[in-house]
Amino acid sequence: MSVSRIDGRACDQLRNITINMDYLSHPLASLLICCGGTKVLTAASFDEKVPQWMKNQKVPGGWVTCEYGMLPAATGERCKREAASGKQGGRTVEIQRLIGRSLRMAVDLEKLGECTVYLDCDVIDADGGTRCASITGASLALAAACKRRYSAAENPFKELVAAVSVGIIDGVPMLDLCYDEDHRAEVDMNIVMTESGNLVEVQGTAEGAPFSRARLNELIDLAEIGLKQIFAKQREILEII
Amino acid sequence: MSVSRIDGRACDQLRNITINMDYLSHPLASLLICCGGTKVLTAASFDEKVPQWMKNQKVPGGWVTCEYGMLPAATGERCKREAASGKQGGRTVEIQRLIGRSLRMAVDLEKLGECTVYLDCDVIDADGGTRCASITGASLALAAACKRRYSAAENPFKELVAAVSVGIIDGVPMLDLCYDEDHRAEVDMNIVMTESGNLVEVQGTAEGAPFSRARLNELIDLAEIGLKQIFAKQREILEII
Amino acid sequence: MSVSRIDGRACDQLRNITINMDYLSHPLASLLICCGGTKVLTAASFDEKVPQWMKNQKVPGGWVTCEYGMLPAATGERCKREAASGKQGGRTVEIQRLIGRSLRMAVDLEKLGECTVYLDCDVIDADGGTRCASITGASLALAAACKRRYSAAENPFKELVAAVSVGIIDGVPMLDLCYDEDHRAEVDMNIVMTESGNLVEVQGTAEGAPFSRARLNELIDLAEIGLKQIFAKQREILEII
Amino acid sequence: MSVSRIDGRACDQLRNITINMDYLSHPLASLLICCGGTKVLTAASFDEKVPQWMKNQKVPGGWVTCEYGMLPAATGERCKREAASGKQGGRTVEIQRLIGRSLRMAVDLEKLGECTVYLDCDVIDADGGTRCASITGASLALAAACKRRYSAAENPFKELVAAVSVGIIDGVPMLDLCYDEDHRAEVDMNIVMTESGNLVEVQGTAEGAPFSRARLNELIDLAEIGLKQIFAKQREILEII
Amino acid sequence: MSVSRIDGRACDQLRNITINMDYLSHPLASLLICCGGTKVLTAASFDEKVPQWMKNQKVPGGWVTCEYGMLPAATGERCKREAASGKQGGRTVEIQRLIGRSLRMAVDLEKLGECTVYLDCDVIDADGGTRCASITGASLALAAACKRRYSAAENPFKELVAAVSVGIIDGVPMLDLCYDEDHRAEVDMNIVMTESGNLVEVQGTAEGAPFSRARLNELIDLAEIGLKQIFAKQREILEII
Amino acid sequence: MSVSRIDGRACDQLRNITINMDYLSHPLASLLICCGGTKVLTAASFDEKVPQWMKNQKVPGGWVTCEYGMLPAATGERCKREAASGKQGGRTVEIQRLIGRSLRMAVDLEKLGECTVYLDCDVIDADGGTRCASITGASLALAAACKRRYSAAENPFKELVAAVSVGIIDGVPMLDLCYDEDHRAEVDMNIVMTESGNLVEVQGTAEGAPFSRARLNELIDLAEIGLKQIFAKQREILEII
Repeated sequence: MSVSRIDGRACDQLRNITINMDYLSHPLASLLICCGGTKVLTAASFDEKVPQWMKNQKVPGGWVTCEYGMLPAATGERCKREAASGKQGGRTVEIQRLIGRSLRMAVDLEKLGECTVYLDCDVIDADGGTRCASITGASLALAAACKRRYSAAENPFKELVAAVSVGIIDGVPMLDLCYDEDHRAEVDMNIVMTESGNLVEVQGTAEGAPFSRARLNELIDLAEIGLKQIFAKQREILEII
Repeated sequence: MSVSRIDGRACDQLRNITINMDYLSHPLASLLICCGGTKVLTAASFDEKVPQWMKNQKVPGGWVTCEYGMLPAATGERCKREAASGKQGGRTVEIQRLIGRSLRMAVDLEKLGECTVYLDCDVIDADGGTRCASITGASLALAAACKRRYSAAENPFKELVAAVSVGIIDGVPMLDLCYDEDHRAEVDMNIVMTESGNLVEVQGTAEGAPFSRARLNELIDLAEIGLKQIFAKQREILEII
Repeated sequence: MSVSRIDGRACDQLRNITINMDYLSHPLASLLICCGGTKVLTAASFDEKVPQWMKNQKVPGGWVTCEYGMLPAATGERCKREAASGKQGGRTVEIQRLIGRSLRMAVDLEKLGECTVYLDCDVIDADGGTRCASITGASLALAAACKRRYSAAENPFKELVAAVSVGIIDGVPMLDLCYDEDHRAEVDMNIVMTESGNLVEVQGTAEGAPFSRARLNELIDLAEIGLKQIFAKQREILEII
Repeated sequence: MSVSRIDGRACDQLRNITINMDYLSHPLASLLICCGGTKVLTAASFDEKVPQWMKNQKVPGGWVTCEYGMLPAATGERCKREAASGKQGGRTVEIQRLIGRSLRMAVDLEKLGECTVYLDCDVIDADGGTRCASITGASLALAAACKRRYSAAENPFKELVAAVSVGIIDGVPMLDLCYDEDHRAEVDMNIVMTESGNLVEVQGTAEGAPFSRARLNELIDLAEIGLKQIFAKQREILEII
Repeated sequence: MSVSRIDGRACDQLRNITINMDYLSHPLASLLICCGGTKVLTAASFDEKVPQWMKNQKVPGGWVTCEYGMLPAATGERCKREAASGKQGGRTVEIQRLIGRSLRMAVDLEKLGECTVYLDCDVIDADGGTRCASITGASLALAAACKRRYSAAENPFKELVAAVSVGIIDGVPMLDLCYDEDHRAEVDMNIVMTESGNLVEVQGTAEGAPFSRARLNELIDLAEIGLKQIFAKQREILEII
Repeated sequence: MSVSRIDGRACDQLRNITINMDYLSHPLASLLICCGGTKVLTAASFDEKVPQWMKNQKVPGGWVTCEYGMLPAATGERCKREAASGKQGGRTVEIQRLIGRSLRMAVDLEKLGECTVYLDCDVIDADGGTRCASITGASLALAAACKRRYSAAENPFKELVAAVSVGIIDGVPMLDLCYDEDHRAEVDMNIVMTESGNLVEVQGTAEGAPFSRARLNELIDLAEIGLKQIFAKQREILEII
């Protein structure tokens, strides 16, 4: 793994991560997470009612949902404001569904009680890996919000989850792709895991050419290396809240 | 694997597949694919121009895109007509993006020449696995359409792709889930492969509880068993067109 | 009437009609109706509540409504998917209102009880006369669904309705226009009748030149010839359900 | 025909019609037409280009299109503003398509030259028959605008058209229904004719019970009585412009 | 102030105002107001319920809201129909919010009781100052409707409001701008006042160059001159209702 | 002015302002402006083409436009994401039009050359005065971007603008209202000025009761006190860029 990367990192090296807790004044928990040049504001807000479909189907407990957005000035070439164009694009929809699914794995929905947790993930500055940074950030925001809202005995938060991207560039597996790497990747994969090392989501996509199962395994190995460090970061912050 | 399934199949057994080629009169190639109780109409139509963004960016060659839909009467409880509610739901958007990405792996976009291929996948009757049936069907429709439109030397179609779902139900890995199984699955995975055995997309989602890497590997093994049979089916039909 | 038609039919000859009952697994009644090259899937689904406006106005009984759609690959040149473009076109709206009105004539809405019947008419393959095939199919699907849901004494279904197109081409009145005839027609008319021979809807449109009342009467005469045969077809199937 | 009507008219009697030419300052021709309590503002505006589809298909000549609207305060109970609810309702769409089709019969589209004529029909006050008043008004506005824009030799306007409603109430055919009659009608029909007495559109709808062909003929007879008077009114005004 | 204006008026001279009360048959009060070439139909309609947000927040009393529209043929070059394009433009939204806010100042919302008053302002013909004409008209319509609906003791109407535009053209302050003046104005201001001479809204916008506070004061002086005459007009009509 | 304010400020005292230049990596100029508890991200991005209407009308030069948004977690009770609800609310539309108009006063549009400047103002955290903070921030971002893009001789930036809110609470005029003050204000006014002391926009709204011209003048006096300090802050930063 002596290949040189665009930003000088080793192939199995994460970008620098910083997390700024309680960045906002209103939500129960919020944070600004920076993974290299990618900055995402995440917030966990409780609404004391459940979605209509839960009411209709009499599902007990609560719900966790995510909304993802990208500020127009977050990208190299300014991207269109979705509120102005009148709908969320396919990429946005796909990402927020992934984040919502992943975070519902982190809590016991029934223990949440009758409420909806909105996890807002807004990308302020984008340099690749925005959905992974969103999951990692939203997981910590949700954990913190639950810690504040529930007693230890009734805390519905089960386990931290986190996500990282991996990919193959010029035939070499690499961890935590930045935007330029992401664009050149032959294979692009996002791995969501629990702190105890189980898989929550695996999404691997051949961008240039199909890949073998051996490659799949190498990529997940690489992701596990990064995720251990990310969980350590989350854990450290969660402990002192 | 002596567990009994809802419909009496073995755990590694596909549902019955039938493919009715050229089901429609207008598109260059079309088919009705039935995978058990799931019926999907797929069609490949050529439009002799490329999307605006390709023109702007002067990308050479053509494009392949997919649109997916579900007829309101296709589901157990009638589902809402998206054309009437004024937008495609998140699930629809996610699925059609997956199908489009997968099928673009099957062709050499540059060799397509200046055109857009629309792959329409419309679910007539739904019993689980509609996105996989759509990919399998669209792959064959696209292969057939290319065979008819291009000479052998200029045929941009590279390789058949196909998809199958696998999942874990009551702790047991199973192949090709029907709707009732899909709803009870702890893990739900869709695997898209090429005929030569490489991965195009891997999408695994923990629905009830996170899963280990060992489980991931068992599931992909199971998918490979099913996909070999599906490719045989596709191949047989493609040869005689 | 020795004029030769595009497809060799006599001027007062219907296209071949086939009806495939219970084509779908979920709705209470469904069918695939083929009128020459036009194929329409129709389904009757019951929803155990009434529209909001009926609740507000305390209208007793139930409601019958229709939704019409055309698959993108159903037409010669692929047509746009309405779900993707975000709204139903004017033609779609006009047609589904016509079908809904016509079918409400076929039932005693008060005897329906508190429910809404959705009649979904989806055109799989289009070769002219799709709204007429939809009405004929939806009428039979609704009759069959009522027969299954209600006792004979309480059956709210009053009478079969059916529809056929007629038109004037090169000055000659013709029955049951196919697409190419429809496009060349000087006058285009859709007649919806009851089995007992009364009119439910008459919609005649001059496309090229206005027409006399004598012409109007010739066209309705022609329609009656076709409708008798269509009612025989419907009746035959309905008897054995 | 000694039946008494809600407003004391005879069964074959029109409501009072007044037409106020050039009611607006900007369009080439405009008018306020009042048919009893129904008031419609119609305007004919020329746009010096053709719709995109005409350009694409290289259809020679111009186009005539209609947009219909109802002011919120025009109805007994205030109706919703379509601009605020974000789309035109089905009834609006159906009506404006009817008006557009009818008026295209009145002109030689090719002689129009490269332009689009917008016929705006806005209902200020509604008491039944708004689509008929719109057609009658738009026909005169279009005739006047053509007279002003083209030389006599090049005038593309072919013939005046006009429309009137007829219906059956308590078994009695009646001409030119007001709102209260319209709501109680068993059959509701709109007839669009040319000044020379030919049919442009016939739209008859059974609202309560299907109707016989004899009834259809009685209704058209009645419409012809009314239309003669309406054409006289239009003609009188058109002569002096 | 010897500058000559486009239409020969003095700089401090209003255009001719006429008000045609009860122009429509259905709403509780309506009128057609003409200010020079600008004609606006305004209507006050009561709906016997309050908006959902008032219910949720348990705000006592009622609500007053405004909807503003411009007919397509009202402008020099035909403007797009907002109902057809699927949304209200920014200008429309801004104007109807201003009118709603201004008119809520005219009534005691709590004394209104549980109801919503819709003030519809539809511009039939536009020659500048449409928002001011709308406010002046809606104020009188609302006053008249309240006088008819409530006893003198319970009348929630507090005070007439009215609006006028002022602006600076070629350095000269002018009252009540017509369209051509409005387009050339360096500063454009709309002043909403109460009959007793207090300010309800002040909206001044530099269109060409910023303006001094001295100019601001001159403009408001000018507006007061015009508003006194407008209030006299309103008062005269209101007295005799 | 010995009245005590919610946060202990004097009536003529601004909240603390901090400006963090070049907060984002992609746009030509960007900043995070904090006015007390209100935080707004503003960015100036150049697009090398003009809007379609400028092209059509052959207006020389460029354009400046603004888009304003509020993150869902920015407010006390989470507000709805406009991208998800499918349209920008009336308040958003009104605000972004105000900002756009104000900033176009700051530049010579013709000297901009053929381009569009997008000023994105996204509220991260809201505590009143978001539109004023947006204008102040966008003005500086635009000045900085112009300084970087153009030579001093060709710089189209004319003059800094800034905005501040003033209002009357319990009868007392106060400068720079926070959210709680804003909600209780009887009069609410936003003043946009140029650095040289001229007015760009004056928007005063009576929220509880109409106000006199004397009050209007007191409020503008107060605004001028605050704006001088704000211009000093902008100037200081602009000098060192």
